[in-house]
Amino acid sequence: MLLLGLDPGLRHTGWGLLDARGNQLRFVACGVVHTDGEADLARRLGGLYDGLAAVIAAHRPVEAAVEETVVNRNPLSSLKLGHARGVVLLVATHHGLPVTEYAAKQVKRAVTGTGGAAKEQVATMVRYLLPGCGEVGADAADALAVAICHAHFRAGRARIAARLTREAERIP
Amino acid sequence: MLLLGLDPGLRHTGWGLLDARGNQLRFVACGVVHTDGEADLARRLGGLYDGLAAVIAAHRPVEAAVEETVVNRNPLSSLKLGHARGVVLLVATHHGLPVTEYAAKQVKRAVTGTGGAAKEQVATMVRYLLPGCGEVGADAADALAVAICHAHFRAGRARIAARLTREAERIP
Repeated sequence: MLLLGLDPGLRHTGWGLLDARGNQLRFVACGVVHTDGEADLARRLGGLYDGLAAVIAAHRPVEAAVEETVVNRNPLSSLKLGHARGVVLLVATHHGLPVTEYAAKQVKRAVTGTGGAAKEQVATMVRYLLPGCGEVGADAADALAVAICHAHFRAGRARIAARLTREAERIP
Repeated sequence: MLLLGLDPGLRHTGWGLLDARGNQLRFVACGVVHTDGEADLARRLGGLYDGLAAVIAAHRPVEAAVEETVVNRNPLSSLKLGHARGVVLLVATHHGLPVTEYAAKQVKRAVTGTGGAAKEQVATMVRYLLPGCGEVGADAADALAVAICHAHFRAGRARIAARLTREAERIP
């Protein structure tokens, strides 16, 4: 079950892929799509779309997860981030991937056990949970953290669904 | 020279097409792409993309213009608008349309003569300048206003380019 985690940004969008079988997680690949700060906005968004489309075409994940962005106090920064986030959600939906959004606190809690963890703690735990990933940068580590969070919630949902099925079968 | 004006919004995105020959403007078509507020964000953005792609496929404009969004004081609103705006810019660039962005004040000045015009003044002037458009709604009127603004700036740029060419030819 190949899962794609995404950490959107106009300049750098992190992506991380892992293979999840129940609680077993295995690192597959990660990286960052950069856009040219000198290019005009429409071209940058086109570059971001193409970069992520290439990742999806190469690895064929089955589901995607995106962090619900922490809304910046600055409306202009929020608007810029929104542009990138819109494109990230769109490229996933264009490739038939269901997208789940997770709050930043959920992601931190899933990876470190606490919703208030620092960025470095998240990266350290990602490297611990996915030993194959090596010395990942901050954007890719965040994307892998979102993918780990999604794997945990999926496994939890699957357990609940299985229990409900068993209980339903007991009803005479 | 078919020009597409766009007024992005997550709920309603206005679009307006006009045919520009120098200072001669002719209304072609306009409308609004609505997205389902009940659907999840990725699907809404997919619907917005498809709606605008259908408009472009049907009319085949050669250039697009988008209003530079007035940044809302509320970062969450700015983020939502950013999502829609990112998709609008992307669909244009995916269809090979160069996109020009104009500040809201430029659009108002181009259409009404003053950068501080009210929304109703803009709609009234759009109906006056493009008699064929009839009783357009606010979102479509704003989109047509952006297209009119783009037509004016294009004509201005073309005049300057022609003058420079003539002057260059005079150089022995």
